[in-house]
Amino acid sequence: MSKEFLFSFKVYYEDTDAGGVVYYANYLKFLERARSEAIAELGITNTKLFKEFNVLIIVKSCNIEYHKSAKLEDNLTIFSKVISNTKTSFVMKQEIKRQSEIISEAEVRLVCVDQNSKPVQIPNIIQDLFKS
Amino acid sequence: MSKEFLFSFKVYYEDTDAGGVVYYANYLKFLERARSEAIAELGITNTKLFKEFNVLIIVKSCNIEYHKSAKLEDNLTIFSKVISNTKTSFVMKQEIKRQSEIISEAEVRLVCVDQNSKPVQIPNIIQDLFKS
Amino acid sequence: MSKEFLFSFKVYYEDTDAGGVVYYANYLKFLERARSEAIAELGITNTKLFKEFNVLIIVKSCNIEYHKSAKLEDNLTIFSKVISNTKTSFVMKQEIKRQSEIISEAEVRLVCVDQNSKPVQIPNIIQDLFKS
Amino acid sequence: MSKEFLFSFKVYYEDTDAGGVVYYANYLKFLERARSEAIAELGITNTKLFKEFNVLIIVKSCNIEYHKSAKLEDNLTIFSKVISNTKTSFVMKQEIKRQSEIISEAEVRLVCVDQNSKPVQIPNIIQDLFKS
Repeated sequence: MSKEFLFSFKVYYEDTDAGGVVYYANYLKFLERARSEAIAELGITNTKLFKEFNVLIIVKSCNIEYHKSAKLEDNLTIFSKVISNTKTSFVMKQEIKRQSEIISEAEVRLVCVDQNSKPVQIPNIIQDLFKS
Repeated sequence: MSKEFLFSFKVYYEDTDAGGVVYYANYLKFLERARSEAIAELGITNTKLFKEFNVLIIVKSCNIEYHKSAKLEDNLTIFSKVISNTKTSFVMKQEIKRQSEIISEAEVRLVCVDQNSKPVQIPNIIQDLFKS
Repeated sequence: MSKEFLFSFKVYYEDTDAGGVVYYANYLKFLERARSEAIAELGITNTKLFKEFNVLIIVKSCNIEYHKSAKLEDNLTIFSKVISNTKTSFVMKQEIKRQSEIISEAEVRLVCVDQNSKPVQIPNIIQDLFKS
Repeated sequence: MSKEFLFSFKVYYEDTDAGGVVYYANYLKFLERARSEAIAELGITNTKLFKEFNVLIIVKSCNIEYHKSAKLEDNLTIFSKVISNTKTSFVMKQEIKRQSEIISEAEVRLVCVDQNSKPVQIPNIIQDLFKS
């Protein structure tokens, strides 16, 4: 079992739409923040990953379900963990919760690529994402 | 077979990120623009749909695959069509293309709800989305 | 002299553009987050302000200067203080800094309005923004 | 007197916030779209400007006033013209209108820089922005 990463944040006006709730595309921004913070917990940043290892982590697919609506000034937490991986890619399961309530859940497939978008091996430092 | 709706647009700076390409969440904005324009072709707007029929169309799930990267000032076209439906919901298949190249494809499940988020029957005017 | 409010945050991919730096409109999102947090420090939220006092705080003008570019994964801090006010409006001076470096500075004029966009008196609880 | 450029667009859900109107930062996105289209009318794109002339146009300051609120599915037009310039910079006056109603007006100071953010002379092809 992979380690679970937690990321908490607040919903601001910028995240909402005229329906009075968070705009559906903005949940993907939250998911990306949570993934960046998971990587930061390993002691590396996206910027360093590119400069030192010539590796970018890009999204190949995202399957997201919307269960409840998040609202302005909600405090949300994202629970993220890797559920499978290959040599060059991995799948992250991410749940967005408001306290015990599941707002949204997503499975995101990520691939490590070089600056020419060619898949490359996942750097060792990132493989720690997969360990318990 | 359902009718296919076309929507064309240009990529601006706001849509891109420091990776030099369109930010992955922003494709969902494009998809929503295309769905709004498909509805507009039926002679109705989201605003009128709510005011006159008390119906909001909300996204329940979105499964998107990213094949190629769209870039600043690309001219893109989205091809959208309904591939299945129930009394209260329908699934739209949407393809984002740069000329003949498929940039991204998505399946989006939409539900008609009232102002209390309760599923309601799809209004007749929207059912024309499903006709060839 | 009014109290100074501090708000710190990180720059994510969503905030940047293909120029490799933070997109110019997104600084206004950061400024609004900082204002919401300043209000939160007074023990009130935008949501409560509207529900309990029927007051919305809206932006009437924003004069922003861009001195340096903020980059992906920069840690930024916003220093905000009220520099003038009337019965229904106030001006906030906001500085965005990366450590000691000034990235951007803005003067934002805000007005309290009711649900019909009619200016109303600033609620007492918000007037604490103006005190030292 | 400089030429006036027109750019029309529609307001989508992505542009609005929980206040039911266009989020204040998003007007700056609209302004940038209008400036990109003004440049496109001269037969050049931002991408080509950088590749062929090593010139980026960046925003140094933006002074925006919000007069009325734009709403979901509003059809808006932006009127843009250069009101002053130096060798390396120029100021654009931009008005956002809903039919005859002024929604917002802005003065935006833009500077031409090279890839090191050093100001450079405005390319001839862009100087046509200033002609009547």
